[in-house]
Amino acid sequence: MNSIFHFTKEMNTIRIGLLGFGNVGGGAFQILLMNKDIIEKSCGKHLIVSRVLARDKNKDRGFEFDHSIITSNVDDIINDPEIDIIAEAIGGIEPATSYILRALEAGKNVVTANKAALAANYDKIINTAKEHNARFRFEASVAAGIPILNAIDTVLRGNQFTEIMGIVNGTTNYILTKMSDERMSYDAALKQAQEKGFAEADPTADVEGIDVANKLTILMALTFGHYVKPENIPTIGISKITPNDIELAKQQGCRIKLIAHAKIENDKLVYEVKPLSLPNSHPLASVNNEFNAVFITGNAVGELMFYGRGAGPLPTGSGVVGDIMEIAKVL
Amino acid sequence: MNSIFHFTKEMNTIRIGLLGFGNVGGGAFQILLMNKDIIEKSCGKHLIVSRVLARDKNKDRGFEFDHSIITSNVDDIINDPEIDIIAEAIGGIEPATSYILRALEAGKNVVTANKAALAANYDKIINTAKEHNARFRFEASVAAGIPILNAIDTVLRGNQFTEIMGIVNGTTNYILTKMSDERMSYDAALKQAQEKGFAEADPTADVEGIDVANKLTILMALTFGHYVKPENIPTIGISKITPNDIELAKQQGCRIKLIAHAKIENDKLVYEVKPLSLPNSHPLASVNNEFNAVFITGNAVGELMFYGRGAGPLPTGSGVVGDIMEIAKVL
Repeated sequence: MNSIFHFTKEMNTIRIGLLGFGNVGGGAFQILLMNKDIIEKSCGKHLIVSRVLARDKNKDRGFEFDHSIITSNVDDIINDPEIDIIAEAIGGIEPATSYILRALEAGKNVVTANKAALAANYDKIINTAKEHNARFRFEASVAAGIPILNAIDTVLRGNQFTEIMGIVNGTTNYILTKMSDERMSYDAALKQAQEKGFAEADPTADVEGIDVANKLTILMALTFGHYVKPENIPTIGISKITPNDIELAKQQGCRIKLIAHAKIENDKLVYEVKPLSLPNSHPLASVNNEFNAVFITGNAVGELMFYGRGAGPLPTGSGVVGDIMEIAKVL
Repeated sequence: MNSIFHFTKEMNTIRIGLLGFGNVGGGAFQILLMNKDIIEKSCGKHLIVSRVLARDKNKDRGFEFDHSIITSNVDDIINDPEIDIIAEAIGGIEPATSYILRALEAGKNVVTANKAALAANYDKIINTAKEHNARFRFEASVAAGIPILNAIDTVLRGNQFTEIMGIVNGTTNYILTKMSDERMSYDAALKQAQEKGFAEADPTADVEGIDVANKLTILMALTFGHYVKPENIPTIGISKITPNDIELAKQQGCRIKLIAHAKIENDKLVYEVKPLSLPNSHPLASVNNEFNAVFITGNAVGELMFYGRGAGPLPTGSGVVGDIMEIAKVL
């Protein structure tokens, strides 16, 4: 396949503006440094992060870089005529959505890892990209660097999709795994997840299934071409799961998993987020701890599963950098 | 992501020449008919199979089509100035390799599902494609429609890969599963695989690991940029596996799987094909029957696994059609 992209190539320089310098932004930056040679060889371009939006200019980020590229003013990035691609890694619906829209309106190509902003405003963002002939990619918004969105949107497009089913939240999967394998209570497992950095101080968005609903919105929009607002997806989280539920499932040869599920039934798309008791033989039943997996069925390819790390600076950064490279190749 | 390919679009017609009308060629043809609307909408082109290379013009293929497109002369396809993409689905090293090379030399874009031809002549084929500015894709040559090659070559390219490990032969995996789950002997399991159409009358290429070595050659070339001839890969098949081996593995909480394995060790690529005893907790241990899975590790994304059907007319056809669409999009 690599023959495709290596014909006539001058090594142009592509300038990247990074919005946000936390886990995801920092991870993407680190990958661009650590894998610089293979990245530039692969896409045939020099890739430079020329500006970064962050609050603290002098904070130690754990790696060497020129701190003068940091700005606290987003206009310095959106209005910079030299920047080709803006990677949004702020998270949350606002101000991220406004920044994404303004960047697209300015004709910038945009990459995002932000499931909340994208799920809340999918149609508006996609349409804005089209109107302004800007490229927009969002691999890392679902299941981090697991290349599920790109697959659905490229080599699997010859399929009529009938079902999608996934474990797309590492926090809740970690808690359910601990409850099942170590017979922990929900509270003890949540506490351990928080101590390990898998769960936030306020875990509501994770444990109540809100984050999963955001990701299902994105998966459904891409797979079935149908945008459903996350708040319209029937959603049940895991905060009511008891050790008794887990034990009962075990006795039936099952494991409880928080599942995002969408299916075509009688020509209608049905969808929900809820804990399901899956037989141990189901490929998703053995997806444990902070891992994610997405199971998808097409009328030609049959059942497929994609499995990997669904969070973390480098796995999420991998998705962001992959999208940046896909755009850089064609600039 | 779908925003990327839907800007200005006249519906041009792309003409496809199909070489071979067996399982794979027939599967691809069927998908192009059955999913015509979504395929054309997705790539923004009309796709027409205008010629098919096959021996028997009048054979019933199980679906309706204009039998006058069939020719038994490959020159009718390679020399047809109207054909944009040639999909090779003959299988075997020759005459397939010669046809692929001649098609590329004629400036045709080529898609193949043929692991034997590609593994035997990887560098020659890739270089011929480059010299003639032709696009060449081969998703279906490894693990049918599971979109592993495209992922490695696109959104995962920001990674330095360190290891690849896969179950990439459905026949041997079916036999090993039956030996393990139903305590069958090797001979009885092979016989059942033959009756079910999973194994050929002469099963040598499958059971002795030759087919797996072909696929490992392709995976290594794409992942590590290093072409190793399949005959230079240390290869052990499954024909010497006894019920006793299976039982012993079980007692240790393991399952025996025929594994293609390549790894960077002390900056050197090491590789082999052989039956391995994997702990039940390994994601590849629960890949059963005719299913395939490829496990790959990158320094950013971490461990990933791709799982699905590794054979069959429609799953393999899905890979071929996906490649055709990726090329059609940019023509």
